[in-house]
Amino acid sequence: MNKNGSLGIVTPRKIAFEAPFVLVNGQTLPRFDLMIETYGELNAEKSNAVLICHALSGNHHVAGYHTAEDKYPGWWDNMVGPGKPIDTERFFVVGLNNLGGCHGTTGPLSENPATGQDYGADFPVVTVKDWVKSQAMLADALGIQQWSAVVGGSLGGMQALQWTIDFPERVRHALVIASAPKLSTQNIAFNDVARQAILTDPDFNDGHYAREQKIPTRGLRIARMMGHITYLAEEGLGKKFGRELHSDGYQYGYGVEFEVESYLRYQGDKFAGHFDANTYLLMTKALDYFDPAADFNNNLSKALQNVQAKFFVASFSTDWRFAPERSKELAKALIAARKSVQYIEVQSNHGHDAFLMEDEAYIRAVAAYMNNVAKEVQS
Amino acid sequence: MNKNGSLGIVTPRKIAFEAPFVLVNGQTLPRFDLMIETYGELNAEKSNAVLICHALSGNHHVAGYHTAEDKYPGWWDNMVGPGKPIDTERFFVVGLNNLGGCHGTTGPLSENPATGQDYGADFPVVTVKDWVKSQAMLADALGIQQWSAVVGGSLGGMQALQWTIDFPERVRHALVIASAPKLSTQNIAFNDVARQAILTDPDFNDGHYAREQKIPTRGLRIARMMGHITYLAEEGLGKKFGRELHSDGYQYGYGVEFEVESYLRYQGDKFAGHFDANTYLLMTKALDYFDPAADFNNNLSKALQNVQAKFFVASFSTDWRFAPERSKELAKALIAARKSVQYIEVQSNHGHDAFLMEDEAYIRAVAAYMNNVAKEVQS
Repeated sequence: MNKNGSLGIVTPRKIAFEAPFVLVNGQTLPRFDLMIETYGELNAEKSNAVLICHALSGNHHVAGYHTAEDKYPGWWDNMVGPGKPIDTERFFVVGLNNLGGCHGTTGPLSENPATGQDYGADFPVVTVKDWVKSQAMLADALGIQQWSAVVGGSLGGMQALQWTIDFPERVRHALVIASAPKLSTQNIAFNDVARQAILTDPDFNDGHYAREQKIPTRGLRIARMMGHITYLAEEGLGKKFGRELHSDGYQYGYGVEFEVESYLRYQGDKFAGHFDANTYLLMTKALDYFDPAADFNNNLSKALQNVQAKFFVASFSTDWRFAPERSKELAKALIAARKSVQYIEVQSNHGHDAFLMEDEAYIRAVAAYMNNVAKEVQS
Repeated sequence: MNKNGSLGIVTPRKIAFEAPFVLVNGQTLPRFDLMIETYGELNAEKSNAVLICHALSGNHHVAGYHTAEDKYPGWWDNMVGPGKPIDTERFFVVGLNNLGGCHGTTGPLSENPATGQDYGADFPVVTVKDWVKSQAMLADALGIQQWSAVVGGSLGGMQALQWTIDFPERVRHALVIASAPKLSTQNIAFNDVARQAILTDPDFNDGHYAREQKIPTRGLRIARMMGHITYLAEEGLGKKFGRELHSDGYQYGYGVEFEVESYLRYQGDKFAGHFDANTYLLMTKALDYFDPAADFNNNLSKALQNVQAKFFVASFSTDWRFAPERSKELAKALIAARKSVQYIEVQSNHGHDAFLMEDEAYIRAVAAYMNNVAKEVQS
């Protein structure tokens, strides 16, 4: 048995929910599907389940490969698998694509039963609370009364946090990584520029582009290029690319001049080629709206007063999108609410993206924490 | 006499240069005009002249008003005027619009003598070195052998620095404010996203939009919105707007939701309505290319070895576009080259934009430095 091996081929499946689902914004989805993947075995006590919540552009494909030809595994394959920090030999791991997503879960590209056409811009705005509610329905469907842990980075960490507030008795541990209890003004500002790039792309067609066989790739590309800069640390970017030129000498034109331009444009093109613009808009709005303290007079400790979960909170030194200060706000509020929290600030050059990377101290800390969680399950 | 009064009505004028002008990129401009404004009187010794170099979106209109109806004065009116830190009762102050600009100086909107049409995308890429060379020709035209001071913030500071290297005997003092000896990788990356937003706007028309009566306002707007975030400090943005909503309650849509969105979109629209897209592209490339140490084996001190000017270098604590570390690089290189330098890091919430604002310690420091410069002139 290879303790650090891959999950190998994994297969997604779709779970249907046929009852009407009322959203925070007042609208109702008549029905929905969630696309999920599961790894490992649910134990007899159903006590070893771990939920992985994805960030802005993630999905249910957390680890392993869909086909033998796949070049890349799922988005958190370095964290989830046999012998890995979230060990699929000890845990039953569930990944899903959130409502409004574009990877099989009901979203803007899905058929609107009311019209027989794709939802497009008519797909309702979803919030982190809606996602958590739908994830609770998924837990019910899988026979999971309580998650051993709910884990997420960035927007995924917000879902883990919301879980502990909305369903305190259903979460034993929350791992909130590179996240924040709410967006900063600057975060919202960057999100709005990204949305404006998409909304003003002539091919956006008021959000009904798919039925016109159009894709607002220009806007998506700009949104992703800009986003990508904010995911990376200035230090890391500088070390990786510096002022290196793509070809010899200056071009005095607008082609690819510096290597960093080549990298960003590639990232933008790749993303625009496979991600849905309406989903991107929805995900950024979910980020903007997330603010669990708002219902408690902006007192985060108050919002956390009924939480039963124990917390693991991690931040990264060069993450300027969700800086360590933002994680510390959460850790301090947990302490003020007399909850259990372990906090680690990882020294890293990888900026916000570090939560997806393999900085050793980070991987070791998650592994140690999850090892203790696994021991609880077994005892 | 009101010592802190305004210059009142000022009048720009155009200076024509009819000789061919060879650019760093190898191309030649057959002729060009520079739009300038001057304030105060050149003394008999012609020793009291101060050149103000503008940043990305600035121009020759540094101070005063063009008409009695103008709502706003020139872009540096708080710094330049009678009794102000750059005192027009003691100095003869010159502002100009740089080559490639869109405010009267020869640029993309000007007629290309070779075709009789506007230059548009055919206007050559200009560099900081080109600007300094053209500014030296302007100095000749005005009878100024040596500037008492060359002053600029951001891209303007780069011009002041280049002046001291290219024409060491023609600059007594250089004031380099909120600037850097070269762009960081992240700076270049943001510039490229801004350019891509413009270049991929369908109305850009390969840079020949003006002759088609089109304007790539979408791209310019996105570029400016993003740029604006980087000009402001996260702290200042948070204090000014927080998560304040534009109207009551969440909208669950893509209209203006948070106040910061309203602000940014307004800034973007305003800019897109009056600034030329080709000029924006040119200015960002001039920023990217600026790297005076490159010709000296990346040794900035070597690049500065023949400098005769004394330096005033200022940075702002929350400026993350051109962080204090970047100004310190310059100050250290000057010290290593045994040049005279005064350095101040100003505590400010205004981010990069602070160089245009009125943080008291900053205004006082410039005033004190320029007061000493004025005394040199008088003695």
